[in-house]
Amino acid sequence: MERNILFTLAYCGTGYHGWQIQDNARTVQQVFQEALARIVGVCPPLKGCSRTDAGVHARQFCISMKIDTRIPNERLVGAMNHFLPPDMAVLSCRTVRDDLHARYSCLGKEYTYEIWNQPVRNPFLEGRALHYYGPLDVDKLNEAAQYYVGKHDFHSFCTLDARDEGDLTRTIQYANVRRREDGMVIFTVAADGFLYNMVRILTGTLLEVAQGKRTPQEIEHILKAKDRAAAGPTAPACGLYLNRVFYPDDIELDETKG
Amino acid sequence: MERNILFTLAYCGTGYHGWQIQDNARTVQQVFQEALARIVGVCPPLKGCSRTDAGVHARQFCISMKIDTRIPNERLVGAMNHFLPPDMAVLSCRTVRDDLHARYSCLGKEYTYEIWNQPVRNPFLEGRALHYYGPLDVDKLNEAAQYYVGKHDFHSFCTLDARDEGDLTRTIQYANVRRREDGMVIFTVAADGFLYNMVRILTGTLLEVAQGKRTPQEIEHILKAKDRAAAGPTAPACGLYLNRVFYPDDIELDETKG
Repeated sequence: MERNILFTLAYCGTGYHGWQIQDNARTVQQVFQEALARIVGVCPPLKGCSRTDAGVHARQFCISMKIDTRIPNERLVGAMNHFLPPDMAVLSCRTVRDDLHARYSCLGKEYTYEIWNQPVRNPFLEGRALHYYGPLDVDKLNEAAQYYVGKHDFHSFCTLDARDEGDLTRTIQYANVRRREDGMVIFTVAADGFLYNMVRILTGTLLEVAQGKRTPQEIEHILKAKDRAAAGPTAPACGLYLNRVFYPDDIELDETKG
Repeated sequence: MERNILFTLAYCGTGYHGWQIQDNARTVQQVFQEALARIVGVCPPLKGCSRTDAGVHARQFCISMKIDTRIPNERLVGAMNHFLPPDMAVLSCRTVRDDLHARYSCLGKEYTYEIWNQPVRNPFLEGRALHYYGPLDVDKLNEAAQYYVGKHDFHSFCTLDARDEGDLTRTIQYANVRRREDGMVIFTVAADGFLYNMVRILTGTLLEVAQGKRTPQEIEHILKAKDRAAAGPTAPACGLYLNRVFYPDDIELDETKG
């Protein structure tokens, strides 16, 4: 009997050109689909929670689909991890309400942007963090990040494309910057939704605050400008991690009743 | 004027066939030498602190050499990091006593062996940790590791080869096993010297303790057996990190007086 399932996976984005299937490029969707097809024959249409860019990582990425198989969820996890490459792993597979859609039902997401803030690069972080050796005043960046919090029109903080027609209002629930003991500076931000390149532009603007090119207070004016040119540059993809994907609490069905 | 210098570098070993130059293989020595040659013309003979295997990582690896250049140490660091690939980085460069030799003057080293102990693999740790999903009783492993500490003949814990002729006695100063919050189990061991494959066999034997195939107390008997067949298997290279290299405190010379 057909059931609606939600896979949660993690992947190192270095080897992927983002989520969506493309010609002549290895993408998350394609690699996932090929693995699933080896288990269930024909892979059903997949709904990804987000359209991630090339080189962006995920510690949690959700995919929903209607699937017609007798294989229980737990065994799907094991089988998928057998067929997936080492830079991708399925963390869980749950039977969910029929109307759940990985993208449209998503309540919000948390991203981190990770910056290796040491004089010398870290050879273990190639493609996994931005190396920035200038001074980063974490308190000042954290102060600046608070101006992002709340319901705003984020026109200034997105790369406009056909996918972002309409309302550019999003609500940032929390944003903070902290320094880990080893020297990694981590910008964490959660919102009900993110526009194209939004976290990378929020980060690029914070780096301009770090460089003294802008004050934390200026972020208010950048938001009001509703003009991409008012904000800082788009930080590189390598530092960006989709960390958490939030859904309503009651989405899960008891598989045994399914 | 010629001076004796000590470079400390770090590298992700996944892309290297160990330290020593070989035909048709990318090695740490070769990559380092090529970068240095671009700065000083002809690269002097290099003395590495250790003969690491293919796939083994280093958070600290030391190289000494006599060098005849007017370039100050600080600028050598910057220039080397410019020419080295992203998976290798020079951390420091110091002028040291003329008689210092990276290998023979070394007082000891600390290695870690890192085990991702979760049901599902971590896609960010391909080639960087052993994935082991069986139960690991860290207290029991730590108890077992204490039998390694002290001065012993480590014949049972090495792969004998021409490089390990003579005395197989080494002194392990400390050894412990701990679990990090994220589920990484880390075996740390320091000694005045290590035999070929020693840390990997110490780890393989601990994993047999975890599997209930041996008791912690049996390690005493394995040491006494002086027989490689008495110990556990050689754990894969990917989990091994050369973490610290110890030299006497007084090796450094003031470069300005050099």
